[in-house]
Amino acid sequence: MQIPIVRNVLEANEKKAEDVRRLLSGHKILTLNLISSPGAGKTSLLERTLRDLSGEFQMAVIEGDLQTDNDARRVAATGAQAVQINTDGGCHLDSNMVLKALENLHLRCLDILFIENVGNLVCPVEFDCGEDAKVALLSVTEGDDKPEKYPLLFNLAKVMVLNKIDLLPYVDFDMSRARAFAVKLNRQLNIFELSCRSGEGLEQWYGWLREMRMAKKRLQE
Amino acid sequence: MQIPIVRNVLEANEKKAEDVRRLLSGHKILTLNLISSPGAGKTSLLERTLRDLSGEFQMAVIEGDLQTDNDARRVAATGAQAVQINTDGGCHLDSNMVLKALENLHLRCLDILFIENVGNLVCPVEFDCGEDAKVALLSVTEGDDKPEKYPLLFNLAKVMVLNKIDLLPYVDFDMSRARAFAVKLNRQLNIFELSCRSGEGLEQWYGWLREMRMAKKRLQE
Repeated sequence: MQIPIVRNVLEANEKKAEDVRRLLSGHKILTLNLISSPGAGKTSLLERTLRDLSGEFQMAVIEGDLQTDNDARRVAATGAQAVQINTDGGCHLDSNMVLKALENLHLRCLDILFIENVGNLVCPVEFDCGEDAKVALLSVTEGDDKPEKYPLLFNLAKVMVLNKIDLLPYVDFDMSRARAFAVKLNRQLNIFELSCRSGEGLEQWYGWLREMRMAKKRLQE
Repeated sequence: MQIPIVRNVLEANEKKAEDVRRLLSGHKILTLNLISSPGAGKTSLLERTLRDLSGEFQMAVIEGDLQTDNDARRVAATGAQAVQINTDGGCHLDSNMVLKALENLHLRCLDILFIENVGNLVCPVEFDCGEDAKVALLSVTEGDDKPEKYPLLFNLAKVMVLNKIDLLPYVDFDMSRARAFAVKLNRQLNIFELSCRSGEGLEQWYGWLREMRMAKKRLQE
């Protein structure tokens, strides 16, 4: 009895996601939906990116959390625009929440919008938020089996960021195993190994952002 | 329109959870529901516990995963009984899945049953699986803000296991901050700091298991 209801919820979400996509594409804004386990480093990656690319792009962040506005305050401290969505216990963001959050952002002149989803490798994957691409983060402390165990995210994402590589000497993480599982699910997957702490590997991620932003601009012209 | 449906689902789950609890309590089996982010170390904690206490207790594990039976194979390698539940993308276990899984376990002479939930700090918390207590795991690589950001689990759990303390020298994790947030949510919370890798701190966790098992036995007599 529940299946049709779930389908309706997802269909309604997809319609609204198209509204989000149309609005943001009209402004040529590259929109990325960041998804990971709690504590994989989404906010840390944003803090680095917002600081390091502040001279190149106008960027904003929509922060999703069950409670607190800690993350929005962290990213706002970089000077970027930030809006907090509190889901009040809800396990994912949806396109309606994002659409409402957009009312609080100045979209004119914005180049890149990051949506930081609730920390959860499962539920956020099913809810299109109107993004151009999903970015999956996985920290090497979580284990190399995670792409195999949570396949949908790695199947749908355009990027897998392997974060916290500064901790590789202290954990049992087989990089080639993690990469092999992920690529088996998704041959188009871009993979970046980096450490938000040491800064190693960030340049490749920035290179991808520049390319994507350029492609988005061209697409709309 | 969705709220009554959600309520019905939770009510149906709670009824079935009472069936599970009655069945397991009839056998004086201590039942623990392990909940954490993906990769916090639930399976590693079980592997250590099943090996180290194999001379003291008869133990079994119900493993919840979206895909794969990797974890069931890992715990079965210790010699314990293990049953895998594949949720096929579902974000949590529920009491009906557990009730069905019990048909595949020999309950006679069993002392402790561990339910390893899907890796997810949000959804599993709302679904009572008929356990005596929820055990929250948090690895120190995830950040000391997690009890504040995912409060329901730490509010309802009887135990918080702080895992991977061997990595403390390499991460920014303020132990007193994590503990303070958690205790604010739950004054009765038992907190164990340990490393499944080095073995440090496991003895306190084992002490708690012995106490709980003893209390369960006494309660039923």
